[in-house]
Amino acid sequence: MITYSDLGKLSSFSALKNERTVSVKNVLTAERVKSSSITLGGGLKYNWAAMPVNDCIIDKLQALSDEAQLIDKYKEILSGVMMNTGEKRLVLHHLTRGNVLGASITADDEDKDQFYKDVLASIKDFSDKVRSGEIKGSTGKPFTTVCQIGIGGSDLGPRALYLALKGWAEGTGVKTLEGRFISNVDPDDAASVISDLDPETTLFILVSKSGTTQETLTNRDLVLKTLSSLGIKGYEPAKHMVAVTSKTSPLAKDASMLASFFIDDYIGGRYSSTSAVGGVVLSLTFGFSTFRSLLAGAHEEDVLSTQKDIRKNGALMDALIGFYLRNVLGYPSTAILPYSQALSRFPAHLQQLDMESNGKHVNRFGEKVDYPTGPVIFGEPGTNGQHSFYQLLHQGSDIIPLQFIGFRECQYGKDIETAGSMSQTKLNANLAAQIAAFARGKEDSNPNKEFDGNRPSSLIYGDKLTPEALGALLAHYENKVMFQGFIWNLNSFDQEGVQLGKVLAKKVLAGCEGDELLKAYADLLI
Amino acid sequence: MITYSDLGKLSSFSALKNERTVSVKNVLTAERVKSSSITLGGGLKYNWAAMPVNDCIIDKLQALSDEAQLIDKYKEILSGVMMNTGEKRLVLHHLTRGNVLGASITADDEDKDQFYKDVLASIKDFSDKVRSGEIKGSTGKPFTTVCQIGIGGSDLGPRALYLALKGWAEGTGVKTLEGRFISNVDPDDAASVISDLDPETTLFILVSKSGTTQETLTNRDLVLKTLSSLGIKGYEPAKHMVAVTSKTSPLAKDASMLASFFIDDYIGGRYSSTSAVGGVVLSLTFGFSTFRSLLAGAHEEDVLSTQKDIRKNGALMDALIGFYLRNVLGYPSTAILPYSQALSRFPAHLQQLDMESNGKHVNRFGEKVDYPTGPVIFGEPGTNGQHSFYQLLHQGSDIIPLQFIGFRECQYGKDIETAGSMSQTKLNANLAAQIAAFARGKEDSNPNKEFDGNRPSSLIYGDKLTPEALGALLAHYENKVMFQGFIWNLNSFDQEGVQLGKVLAKKVLAGCEGDELLKAYADLLI
Repeated sequence: MITYSDLGKLSSFSALKNERTVSVKNVLTAERVKSSSITLGGGLKYNWAAMPVNDCIIDKLQALSDEAQLIDKYKEILSGVMMNTGEKRLVLHHLTRGNVLGASITADDEDKDQFYKDVLASIKDFSDKVRSGEIKGSTGKPFTTVCQIGIGGSDLGPRALYLALKGWAEGTGVKTLEGRFISNVDPDDAASVISDLDPETTLFILVSKSGTTQETLTNRDLVLKTLSSLGIKGYEPAKHMVAVTSKTSPLAKDASMLASFFIDDYIGGRYSSTSAVGGVVLSLTFGFSTFRSLLAGAHEEDVLSTQKDIRKNGALMDALIGFYLRNVLGYPSTAILPYSQALSRFPAHLQQLDMESNGKHVNRFGEKVDYPTGPVIFGEPGTNGQHSFYQLLHQGSDIIPLQFIGFRECQYGKDIETAGSMSQTKLNANLAAQIAAFARGKEDSNPNKEFDGNRPSSLIYGDKLTPEALGALLAHYENKVMFQGFIWNLNSFDQEGVQLGKVLAKKVLAGCEGDELLKAYADLLI
Repeated sequence: MITYSDLGKLSSFSALKNERTVSVKNVLTAERVKSSSITLGGGLKYNWAAMPVNDCIIDKLQALSDEAQLIDKYKEILSGVMMNTGEKRLVLHHLTRGNVLGASITADDEDKDQFYKDVLASIKDFSDKVRSGEIKGSTGKPFTTVCQIGIGGSDLGPRALYLALKGWAEGTGVKTLEGRFISNVDPDDAASVISDLDPETTLFILVSKSGTTQETLTNRDLVLKTLSSLGIKGYEPAKHMVAVTSKTSPLAKDASMLASFFIDDYIGGRYSSTSAVGGVVLSLTFGFSTFRSLLAGAHEEDVLSTQKDIRKNGALMDALIGFYLRNVLGYPSTAILPYSQALSRFPAHLQQLDMESNGKHVNRFGEKVDYPTGPVIFGEPGTNGQHSFYQLLHQGSDIIPLQFIGFRECQYGKDIETAGSMSQTKLNANLAAQIAAFARGKEDSNPNKEFDGNRPSSLIYGDKLTPEALGALLAHYENKVMFQGFIWNLNSFDQEGVQLGKVLAKKVLAGCEGDELLKAYADLLI
């Protein structure tokens, strides 16, 4: 019997709050670093040595995990139990990369496992043909560039993953089509991207689950009109555009599209990177086998995330420690700091994933909760961040928990030795140094040069950012956010908070309909 | 007589804390929107209508501004009084765009006004010659691309400004050289940029004040080695590189450079965008007159920032309201939300500017303070953010104050009408709608669809993002951060918090020197 209840009703939460807190400075030792890694998928590991927890606290977190039935709830999702309570939908993004429990899941009179497999097969077929040159542009030229038009989950995740694999593909000799992205309704976004595209060799991917997303349809029209007006002989824009949408959307009925790939209502935008939303663009740019490797890494992590023992389940441990930092220690934000330029936009994806899933203050039954939920997420790659906002992280008045990510090897393989070390070694020396500096601090007779330390951090690390590692990294965070949603008793799979702005924007476009306040702001801007 | 003292010693702060707080929902009216704009430089305005303040609170903020002598302290900076107390240096970034008080400032036996004018003249001369083709690459081809190698303040500001003006230049027909940037010591950053540069037509700008920045020198060596190894006939890498550095740095003595442009110790990295650090790359890419327009906008804002009346001084009002949100209402973070794709990297620049300046917990005398200082700064362009983290901003458990930025016109001029409106109109309709939605909220019988409102926001707006507007926007934030530093009694111009990590990174590179903890982390990564 699975029970959903608020944090305040869990006896394990009271016990946790009564447990003595520990100082990172006091507990962090070399031995602890060596013994605090948990295996994730894709060859990655999660190390929590520099987090303010000890065995007593971890035991209490385990008790909370058990009392809140976190793994059982995850298995409900995997079994196809309706878990998006707001929109009354199943939550099936895990199924896009494999069937963890081997469950038979039917919805809309359709075997969902088969549905996603069919979509994958259609992505493979199409992307193979485009990459081999069998499918060409309307003027007979092979496609060399792929441009995704989408916003939110149809943009941030796929864009972050594309950027994350570009160097890997170059370094391993995988044939690459260039990837570009248009998202913002600001017309300068499309203008900037179009200004250096060759229309004859560019394939557009229009991504909108509902087929009604204002920004995406606007940008489609802008692209079509701009490219048509160029007067290129024989050029037919429609033969340069595919759709990723749901079967029931208006877009799915648009026969002018070169091809269509389907998604369904059981995958939220921010969880859709492993569906056709990310699959089409990644298979076109790097090949289907690359995308399949990414799925394999994600699936491996999904399987590992089913373990009840938090000392063996990295996503669960990360979720529970993050919850402890937020609800016991009271830290309101978290920085994501990848020491990998390839992950430059990964924090932006995690911002959506985390803040849109758990930035809520009513529980899954629609009742207000009386505890803090999802934190503010922000971040930039190191070492860049070191020369920017790390000052505040080290010496600011608030403590910001940190999540580091690093890899032994670079992607391009174009490293050199200067001043006695390779750049990649310098990069990782900085990463190791920062963890120690944040944790231990430094005494100094000049308070301005003193570091209090006790700044908690975790580290996800691996040999190289490969498709498998990237898939596992993505799934790790998806599962972490899911577990935290369970802890806070939220529905992490709807986003009612984005509706009001949409409604009012339409009202402004309709002339404000007598709303004087809207009119006053519109007058400043329009 | 100017006095520096902690917040707790100001009687106006006690008075402010005792003043009744107000709800944005209750005070925000159309009339208030119309009467709450303050003129900034460059044709911009700052509107504070949706902030939780009323006349009583604003009067108290004025009293605090007066008691803390904020304008007098700003004038000390402008007069050349030593204000970087940590490093015992003058603070002269305002002088790069004009002499607000007409002060005569001498340092290192040099008239600083003349020094910056001479630098500007050398930038004009060199950039004119490169753009006209008089100065060519070593194989006789004109330069078409400029690549800046720098990190932190030598990267984030210049990069954000370059991206901010690219569409403006294209839309107004200003000849543009392409701008590229290498910053991270991650070798994949340089590899990615180099992979599609034409060495023969690319000019590199090496930017490091000290001439010893690890990342920058490493990337210079990586670039030089990679390009030399290509075996291009007649290609001499040194003839493709200029330096921006201080006169006393090792780089300044490097006779192999095509040219050198000087900065000095009186401008911190994060305040250096209007010095040669930003000036060389912007003058090369968009022409010197564009950079001069940016300086004019910044100077106009600097002059406006000298006004004592906070109702007329936008930077001062923004600073005081921000302080009120932080120290009276207790909000720990602030989101920067430009409805302008051109400003996509402007929040990353502000992250450094704000968090590195005021992310401190000792005052300018080196004593610990007992109040919160600089907040966490994060942000992404709208409407992208709406489809990402706005869920948390609307319905999360914490309140995050918001700073919106918007412009009536787009830059490229390639807008079209779809569904009855232009894209730019849709963009700004969303912006107007969001401000109202955040402030007013919405009642609903379903708590999941209810919005509490009372989410405070401000709006900076103007006709178009021109060089003048951009300069004013930059100066607005610089001056805001400076005023807040005065309020918190901090030295906003040093960054001791970045030192410890540098020292430990060197230790790791030297084999950890018996530091077992460092060794344990290094073993995971290297």
